[in-house]
Amino acid sequence: MRTATASICTIGDEILIGQITDTNSAHISRALNSLGIKVTRMTSIGDDHADIINSLTEELNRNDIVIVTGGLGPTKDDITKKALADLSGSSSYKTDERQLEIIHRILSARGLDVLDINLAQASVPETCDVIPNRLGTAPIMVFRFPEDRFGHPATLYSLPGVPFEALGALDDIMHDIRQHYYTADIYHKTVMTFGIAESALSKMLDEWEDSLPADMHLAYLPNPLTGVRLRLSIYGGSRSDEEERIGKEMVRLKDILGDALYSEEDDTLERSIGRKLAEAGKTVSAAESCTGGLISSLFTSIPGSSEYYLGSVTSYANSVKTGVLGVPSEIIEANGAVSGECVAAMAEGVRRLTGSDYSVATSGIAGPGGGSETKPVGLVWIGISSQMGTETHRLVFKGDRKRNIERFASNALNLLRLKIEKEINN
Amino acid sequence: MRTATASICTIGDEILIGQITDTNSAHISRALNSLGIKVTRMTSIGDDHADIINSLTEELNRNDIVIVTGGLGPTKDDITKKALADLSGSSSYKTDERQLEIIHRILSARGLDVLDINLAQASVPETCDVIPNRLGTAPIMVFRFPEDRFGHPATLYSLPGVPFEALGALDDIMHDIRQHYYTADIYHKTVMTFGIAESALSKMLDEWEDSLPADMHLAYLPNPLTGVRLRLSIYGGSRSDEEERIGKEMVRLKDILGDALYSEEDDTLERSIGRKLAEAGKTVSAAESCTGGLISSLFTSIPGSSEYYLGSVTSYANSVKTGVLGVPSEIIEANGAVSGECVAAMAEGVRRLTGSDYSVATSGIAGPGGGSETKPVGLVWIGISSQMGTETHRLVFKGDRKRNIERFASNALNLLRLKIEKEINN
Repeated sequence: MRTATASICTIGDEILIGQITDTNSAHISRALNSLGIKVTRMTSIGDDHADIINSLTEELNRNDIVIVTGGLGPTKDDITKKALADLSGSSSYKTDERQLEIIHRILSARGLDVLDINLAQASVPETCDVIPNRLGTAPIMVFRFPEDRFGHPATLYSLPGVPFEALGALDDIMHDIRQHYYTADIYHKTVMTFGIAESALSKMLDEWEDSLPADMHLAYLPNPLTGVRLRLSIYGGSRSDEEERIGKEMVRLKDILGDALYSEEDDTLERSIGRKLAEAGKTVSAAESCTGGLISSLFTSIPGSSEYYLGSVTSYANSVKTGVLGVPSEIIEANGAVSGECVAAMAEGVRRLTGSDYSVATSGIAGPGGGSETKPVGLVWIGISSQMGTETHRLVFKGDRKRNIERFASNALNLLRLKIEKEINN
Repeated sequence: MRTATASICTIGDEILIGQITDTNSAHISRALNSLGIKVTRMTSIGDDHADIINSLTEELNRNDIVIVTGGLGPTKDDITKKALADLSGSSSYKTDERQLEIIHRILSARGLDVLDINLAQASVPETCDVIPNRLGTAPIMVFRFPEDRFGHPATLYSLPGVPFEALGALDDIMHDIRQHYYTADIYHKTVMTFGIAESALSKMLDEWEDSLPADMHLAYLPNPLTGVRLRLSIYGGSRSDEEERIGKEMVRLKDILGDALYSEEDDTLERSIGRKLAEAGKTVSAAESCTGGLISSLFTSIPGSSEYYLGSVTSYANSVKTGVLGVPSEIIEANGAVSGECVAAMAEGVRRLTGSDYSVATSGIAGPGGGSETKPVGLVWIGISSQMGTETHRLVFKGDRKRNIERFASNALNLLRLKIEKEINN
């Protein structure tokens, strides 16, 4: 029995004109993937009645399942519901009482009046099933098309575009899919590396990659914040020994990667560091200049990070470097704030100030302006300090401001990770 | 003469399985939009030869211009180039000497060996024109299809998937498009609001929206970090008085929005605050607990922010609140760290520590754990301090950790913005 295929479609002019980036599709895709349902295509179209009908018809012709997000807001520019009514041949609407109750509850909890346009959101084409949306005012609509319509039974799920609501509805939708379709597992194993460029990594892994069994596939996914993610996949797994087979390949892969590998799951540097610190009962703090709070923000994005993360000082002004972190002003006068001496003093200063076991400090030039011949845009000094000593590193990157800040932060985290691994394992 | 239409297509299994989010399409779309070229569709497909050929053929049938990103990496999972060779009927390859030189330069600057797989990237189907990619190793390929192939002259641009490289190539591609297609302006005017929910905003604007001329269209774009963005558009503008016509509507809109409007351009709270502070010669600092560095990170994402942003303390641990920010431990003992008393002391503490004119402080419970009946997950206290006094605000949100942190930070910035506007204008 074959597993179903799916297509994800986002509706909204704001996506087509580039005002917002679609993040829902990636989440929906991961959820479908975990049921063994292969996503064949993602499409974004505008708030246009004919485009919506045509595109959804094409996708329903090609796929068993189509998941639509967006265009369900209370405002006049949202027309998805009308298009779906027409697509499914519905000329009348029904009110979903469960959603009506949720609309009243949500708006009164926010202290807002219940407006007619809010109530209208509980009204849906009579051709659809409704899954109530507990997190927002627009319900999830499920249209089940019989086989004679598209040559196969097809289901269309319509979700709100607001990411929080769309993602909140995913469990219910996956439950519905499991009840109506045959599902199986696609097996993926992901490992995280940092510090080796994609092409060099590919060269290192060339021989091993060539020796992989025919049904295994390796993908390289570089990201400035997390490094190169390697994903080994077995699709359409009818065998039951995928885990064992991939495990065998992992042993060889780990041997080749050495300490460039920092995690054997889909992970981030900050989560991996956090786990290591928590296990060892150690703490960390940060002193940030050019990274401006990003390192701290990454640490605190992890639930439970208060167990090992004490805090940070963003010393953007030199007066904060000297006044708060206690960097001697002579160091800045003699070497500048972007120097090994300065980041060493910053790292030691914040460790003293917070009492943490480890600390990381950054000072660099993110650009676009502010560079010089000896200290170009893209230069960063990174300091890592612990009871065992303080080390400093000088790195240079070529990117725009955002990318430079990201590279500065991730490389600082990676150097911290290497020091922690060395000291905690010994 | 009609303006061209375009379609954007991203290629890569990593997008379809949801491992990465496509951010290129939004940037490409904005660039096309500014030339008056309407993007009709965005599509993501996998690294599959038949899918690539079929999808690109469909898009070339429907559009004048197709922009493809991804699948050009040096590794074996990238097959876009082969598919494009087949689509364009090319059986042989040529080497682009300019790109070859760039490959050598980039890799030697990074201290990397030049590998055969890197050199192979300069080899392209003989059917295409090449725009050298100065930021990466894979060149931009331009395929120009004659009218008899798709019923109209069509152009396909193939860009690398790495965002930094794709965006770096945009100027060259837009230049090429301007030389080959008729371009015109689509007129958009965007204003930023904060503090009013989308549906309430829609109710407020209902009457005005109904009175808009038929060729004007209003869109609502809510975002937890920036508030609700309102976009007023005139498409296909053949008239030359769009600016004046929209200007007239803006006067009415501003009157309705009052101080919920914080900027009359596509803006963010942190950029708007930065401009106001820089103009007044004032400075700001932050003391962050639950927002964990996000406020600082937002401030420092703006080039030139060192002019008004001095720095911050992320006081995640209570010991940092007392030891670094000088919050009296009696305050925390009596009220807890999530309290008006605590954020007031934090805000005053960081202002004293950094010598800034303004400061903003946050303490709350982002979740998922850590809440109680009186202090639920989603509760935040925000303190704003200046020479004129310190104010505190209590707000409650319902979201996951990430969304709560974002709402805490943006609401803190908005309260800071309101205080600055009040005090600086008086």
